[in-house]
Amino acid sequence: MRALREFFPVLDWLPGYSRADLGGDINAGIITAIMLVPQSMAYALLAGLPPEMGLYSSIFPLILYAAFGTSRTLAVGPVALVSLMVASTIQNLSPVFPGRIGEIPMALALLVGAISVAMGLLRVGFVVNFISHHVISGFTSAAALIIALSQFKHLLGIDLPRTHNILAILATAHGELSAVNPASLAIGAASVAVLSFFLYGLTPLLKHLGLHGPNVQIAGKTGPLVVVVSATLLVAGLGLAGPGGIAVVGDLPRGLPPLTIPAFDLALWEALIGPALLISFVGFLESVSVAKALASRRRQKIGANQELVALGMANITASFSGGYPVTGGFSRSSVNFSAGARTPLASLLTALLVGLTALFLTPLFYYLPKAVLAAIIIVAVLGLVDIRTAKGAWHYSKADALALAGTFVSVFWVGVEMGIVIGVGISILMHLWRASRPHVAVVGRVPGTEHFRNIKRHDVQQSPKVSMVRVDETLFFANAAWFENWILSHIADNPEAEHLVLICTAINYIDGTALETLERLEEELHNAGVTLHLAEVKGPVMDRLHAAGFDRHLGPSRVHLSTHTAIEALKGYE
Amino acid sequence: MRALREFFPVLDWLPGYSRADLGGDINAGIITAIMLVPQSMAYALLAGLPPEMGLYSSIFPLILYAAFGTSRTLAVGPVALVSLMVASTIQNLSPVFPGRIGEIPMALALLVGAISVAMGLLRVGFVVNFISHHVISGFTSAAALIIALSQFKHLLGIDLPRTHNILAILATAHGELSAVNPASLAIGAASVAVLSFFLYGLTPLLKHLGLHGPNVQIAGKTGPLVVVVSATLLVAGLGLAGPGGIAVVGDLPRGLPPLTIPAFDLALWEALIGPALLISFVGFLESVSVAKALASRRRQKIGANQELVALGMANITASFSGGYPVTGGFSRSSVNFSAGARTPLASLLTALLVGLTALFLTPLFYYLPKAVLAAIIIVAVLGLVDIRTAKGAWHYSKADALALAGTFVSVFWVGVEMGIVIGVGISILMHLWRASRPHVAVVGRVPGTEHFRNIKRHDVQQSPKVSMVRVDETLFFANAAWFENWILSHIADNPEAEHLVLICTAINYIDGTALETLERLEEELHNAGVTLHLAEVKGPVMDRLHAAGFDRHLGPSRVHLSTHTAIEALKGYE
Repeated sequence: MRALREFFPVLDWLPGYSRADLGGDINAGIITAIMLVPQSMAYALLAGLPPEMGLYSSIFPLILYAAFGTSRTLAVGPVALVSLMVASTIQNLSPVFPGRIGEIPMALALLVGAISVAMGLLRVGFVVNFISHHVISGFTSAAALIIALSQFKHLLGIDLPRTHNILAILATAHGELSAVNPASLAIGAASVAVLSFFLYGLTPLLKHLGLHGPNVQIAGKTGPLVVVVSATLLVAGLGLAGPGGIAVVGDLPRGLPPLTIPAFDLALWEALIGPALLISFVGFLESVSVAKALASRRRQKIGANQELVALGMANITASFSGGYPVTGGFSRSSVNFSAGARTPLASLLTALLVGLTALFLTPLFYYLPKAVLAAIIIVAVLGLVDIRTAKGAWHYSKADALALAGTFVSVFWVGVEMGIVIGVGISILMHLWRASRPHVAVVGRVPGTEHFRNIKRHDVQQSPKVSMVRVDETLFFANAAWFENWILSHIADNPEAEHLVLICTAINYIDGTALETLERLEEELHNAGVTLHLAEVKGPVMDRLHAAGFDRHLGPSRVHLSTHTAIEALKGYE
Repeated sequence: MRALREFFPVLDWLPGYSRADLGGDINAGIITAIMLVPQSMAYALLAGLPPEMGLYSSIFPLILYAAFGTSRTLAVGPVALVSLMVASTIQNLSPVFPGRIGEIPMALALLVGAISVAMGLLRVGFVVNFISHHVISGFTSAAALIIALSQFKHLLGIDLPRTHNILAILATAHGELSAVNPASLAIGAASVAVLSFFLYGLTPLLKHLGLHGPNVQIAGKTGPLVVVVSATLLVAGLGLAGPGGIAVVGDLPRGLPPLTIPAFDLALWEALIGPALLISFVGFLESVSVAKALASRRRQKIGANQELVALGMANITASFSGGYPVTGGFSRSSVNFSAGARTPLASLLTALLVGLTALFLTPLFYYLPKAVLAAIIIVAVLGLVDIRTAKGAWHYSKADALALAGTFVSVFWVGVEMGIVIGVGISILMHLWRASRPHVAVVGRVPGTEHFRNIKRHDVQQSPKVSMVRVDETLFFANAAWFENWILSHIADNPEAEHLVLICTAINYIDGTALETLERLEEELHNAGVTLHLAEVKGPVMDRLHAAGFDRHLGPSRVHLSTHTAIEALKGYE
């Protein structure tokens, strides 16, 4: 029963649903739907897809997430980062699979879903942690700028190349300036201004006017609805659409999402597997971070592997209902939470409302200017540019800062997917680099204690004949030779030393290369008239040394439980 | 003056050359030359090059190494592993640069030389340590088998495809069996038998007969000379060469190495840079390991970065004198050492003798059967197959065994260069994998001491209200989330705990992601009614935490010098 509830978290909340939660859920469901309808169409356009695919991705996937997800308040659907990655995948593969671009989004959603479910069931969700926070931050900032730039063509009403190369975009933009559609630009710029005001100015203003409560926060999120309605009425009323006029969304199909069968084509899947992996990782990271943040505010728990299953089911559903990859969105989930969502019932209501919109209301979007959707995207993504993390990394750790900057630059330089891969590579290399040249401290006894610290930092007692060295790293292939050289040169500089006590508190593992090095070092030290001792070897490391016979080779008089007992045993020398 | 001597180690030994060293140097110089002449031609054939390129690579490069190298006894020249890598590079690039195959060896030697010199001068030689001992072992074993197999065509006198795919080779070999040249096979098989006897049987036999001394060891290494001379005489005397007969070396140019100018062609260099990097890494690893082993027997020192400079100069010289990439050879250096080499003068004499051979003796090799050279290679490389390391790794560390096996399989499966790259990837991933799921121990006080150990392994004292946890790994992006979950579930399992002391002896670094996690964890623990303490934070880690303000956030009462002082401070709870 417990396993069943873990796999279907819906069983946790639905049977005992309380009427007290209903008001908040209804409020949140409606407000999230109002936000989601224009956003989902806008993100579909960003991905290079027809707007209705955004709507289709916002119906059945939400229902599946509600059944499987562990977050009570996550709002699933199309998001900016994933849409950009879908756009990049389509763009890269369109020359390889000509005439089959229409199959890519569904196939991608299927693969993303299958990968996520598999990772969740195999409980290997933790591998996404190899994408560090700083890599994600650099990626998000770069992606936000690329997305914003890519939307300028809609804002200006001109054609710009779909590329991550900013210079190419700017060059074309400059050449096309004469073709700018002034009406389109005016309506887009006005939308940006209104949206920015709603997002950054309205809530403070209302508070200044003495209004309070969650609805004041939510009022700021209604900007998209306001600009969509007013711009549509304006364009329809004044007849601004049509040839040479403002580009509008136009005819959208009416009806529920079609049943789509994703292409089962190995060649296509092989080409999509890399992007699908990255999309599932990035989607999961965005989703789980917001889910955790919201859950912690209400002391609820998020199961990372079950989240993978839930997002995977949502994506598989998207692939069979005319959608494209989805995940939990950052700002949308916050709105859902602030609007009072208590349970996934809010998401079910949102799905119902988006479904009704797709069934009955699509004709209303005929006169919706694309420039307005572009404005919605631009204002949404510019808020994702993350300078604070970059500043913090610069001050705290240059390695993190390098990973962040490397990701940021790579996303622009070599593309969205490879940018993340390079970022992960940089952060792993920085970690290995550090581990390959570890900190080594010569230590002495803190007077009056059994505690031993660095002679350079603390006022400690030491004996010239007994040298105590603490190496601050696991010993493995990347630092074994370096460590051997350090010890040999330390002994050369301390000709009086007759015993070397290696304090192993920070040695968490000794791999085969390091074990050989240690055996050779013991011999080299012996030849130099120095006896090697080990102190404070941890249990798991000792087990290995014992299996290899190294502890017996040294003998019990040279393997010490603690540094203190080592010094006691060598008392004659002190 | 000291810097000059470091850069020109020749200044260390030549000015004070002692007559006592002369006998050994002359003996070693002659014996090494006798071994080197047939070997260098054989390895050139292995690399797919004309035999004289082997001789050319064994003259000037030796002189340059003698001037710059820090090893007194290293014997530089063509070696099997590097020759195989050159063969693989030529094979991969010949479709890309048709008609320019002749330029590849020299260009490769130039790049290998330039990379090595640059790495040596920049003092980044330590990065080769990322190729772990186990990766090299798997690579060497696989390469030895591939080399041996590749020589069977010479032994059998048939044409086999140049590929690393064993199945393809075997399939072709099976089809070609009828074409086997029996005379070639007989002379090759006899050579293998004689060489094996010299290598494995002669020295024990001579010892059994009561003979001793270094010349007994060396006698075993004269096999190549014996088979070369007797086979050449046999083929010439019986007239076995010619069309349909035994394939022989044939006409070799007479004279000193030509002055060659390597191609300065960016497209070619770009294609060669990857292989050149791997060749310089592998060549350096082989060379420096034998140099270190020999130097330690006479208590001499090897400077890793200066070795890179010396090998680099040797390769640059090779590229300008009709040669191909060289490095210090394993068995040849051992012979040089056993034959009494005291200084690089031995190598200078070897170079002189090889030079004289190239000038005057090449006609003597006309009737030398290629099958004999193949036999020399086969016997030499089969000794490189390293089962002992694989067995040791299997017992000591499955991660090492996996890296070894992965490299071995990859070399066969995807090729020589990519095999190493995959092996390095595996060993790095295994290291990261381990670091991403660290060992965490709950500890207690060893009675009567200030020492704290794992409650599961030691009989220790602990208090239910003060939980002491030691995490055995640096905290960084790959394990921060895992660590947070571990601590939270530990606290959930220990509801009585009011204080959590995190013992930081094994935390060598806290990156930005982990710092954020630690800050969040502190808050989560606080919300759960648990106070977080840090104990035994190391100097460099403390510096970072201080810069980030985390120590001030905790306050001095929660940051303890040692675990003991932490417990003393929390005495009321104990």
